[in-house]
Amino acid sequence: MAGGDELKLLGTWPSPFVARVEIALRLKGLSYEYVEQDLTNKSELLLSSNPVHKKVPVLIHNGKAISESPVILQYVDEAFGGASLLSADPYERAVARFWAAYIDDELITAWVPTILCKTEEEKAEAIKKTLAAMERLEGALKDSSKGKPFFGGETVGLVDVVLGGLNSWMKATEELIGVKIFDPAKTPLLAAWVEHFDELDAVRDVSPDVDGVIKYAKMRQLEAAAGASEN
Amino acid sequence: MAGGDELKLLGTWPSPFVARVEIALRLKGLSYEYVEQDLTNKSELLLSSNPVHKKVPVLIHNGKAISESPVILQYVDEAFGGASLLSADPYERAVARFWAAYIDDELITAWVPTILCKTEEEKAEAIKKTLAAMERLEGALKDSSKGKPFFGGETVGLVDVVLGGLNSWMKATEELIGVKIFDPAKTPLLAAWVEHFDELDAVRDVSPDVDGVIKYAKMRQLEAAAGASEN
Repeated sequence: MAGGDELKLLGTWPSPFVARVEIALRLKGLSYEYVEQDLTNKSELLLSSNPVHKKVPVLIHNGKAISESPVILQYVDEAFGGASLLSADPYERAVARFWAAYIDDELITAWVPTILCKTEEEKAEAIKKTLAAMERLEGALKDSSKGKPFFGGETVGLVDVVLGGLNSWMKATEELIGVKIFDPAKTPLLAAWVEHFDELDAVRDVSPDVDGVIKYAKMRQLEAAAGASEN
Repeated sequence: MAGGDELKLLGTWPSPFVARVEIALRLKGLSYEYVEQDLTNKSELLLSSNPVHKKVPVLIHNGKAISESPVILQYVDEAFGGASLLSADPYERAVARFWAAYIDDELITAWVPTILCKTEEEKAEAIKKTLAAMERLEGALKDSSKGKPFFGGETVGLVDVVLGGLNSWMKATEELIGVKIFDPAKTPLLAAWVEHFDELDAVRDVSPDVDGVIKYAKMRQLEAAAGASEN
């Protein structure tokens, strides 16, 4: 990082969206100050930095705030040197952006109700859709990696970081619902990928602890159940 | 365009997502073959080009297919020369990507039920949210344009194209619901912007005809009402 650059990241520890930004910052070898946020009592800094969505993550670079993890990841990639998250080839960049959006729009939408659902039918449907999305991503990994370990090929790319930020949550979900999401039988490449990815130095220290995520998810499930019983 | 490049765009005439791609192609001065799609009877070409979402727009460049309008716009910007849709400055690029995502995630989500809604309460709430989103975008235009006509400043940028693809639908909506969306009193900069933007050569010929959109929307409203009465 150039001398004098100041990077501050507003986050919450269980957020997969914050995890992906931390992974990107570490892959770039950047130093940053992490500031944990209390979303039940939002700080003036969070509200003034992200007045539109009032959410984490927010990256503040020399006083300028950037919000929304897909936007932050591309900012980090473009504003700083080091290994790039995106290929120089426009078509490969487009393919990576397509799958990054797929993870946010399809996989996450399918996955959330596997652990936060009102009925068993809703849960079964959510599990089915999540596993279908993982099979799609298995195909994407096969095509993008060209026999190398990552979506980015030999090195970690945008899709690796976007999906990898979710790894702790996916592992926690496997425990919570008793279903293999990284299933070596159905998605062997992704099952190998998650092992490789989670062993990276840039990932190990910032991925939320799986047991902690399980406890947090159970708390959220209890809150949701209490909320539902009040209706 | 380099000799031998072949560009084919799969679209449907009323789609604002297709309109934004056509605008970007024309801003770049690119020739392309437009192929209208029947979404009630999807073509083999559409299904094989976009097997994941099976939606338009799809841009096929020398046989390689790219889907999802935000991905296509950045591809067009990066693969071809000419005026760039994004600034060279990483922070300005991030700001543009933030507002482009805001239009898709917030404005469009708020706007759709202004014309396709089940109850008057739902419609009133949708109108309120749409106008609030327009006020946010007024602020974004003020900050981004720095006194020039466009979000991109003196020239059209990513946010102009993403929002501008919706202009015919927004004008049609004003007629359909009797509410000013580009309101000179509440959002004077956007009211001036829509006039400037829609007069551009790259826009005039490809924006869906407003009267045609009104007829199409009324047909969709009738279909939705018929569907609802069958339930």
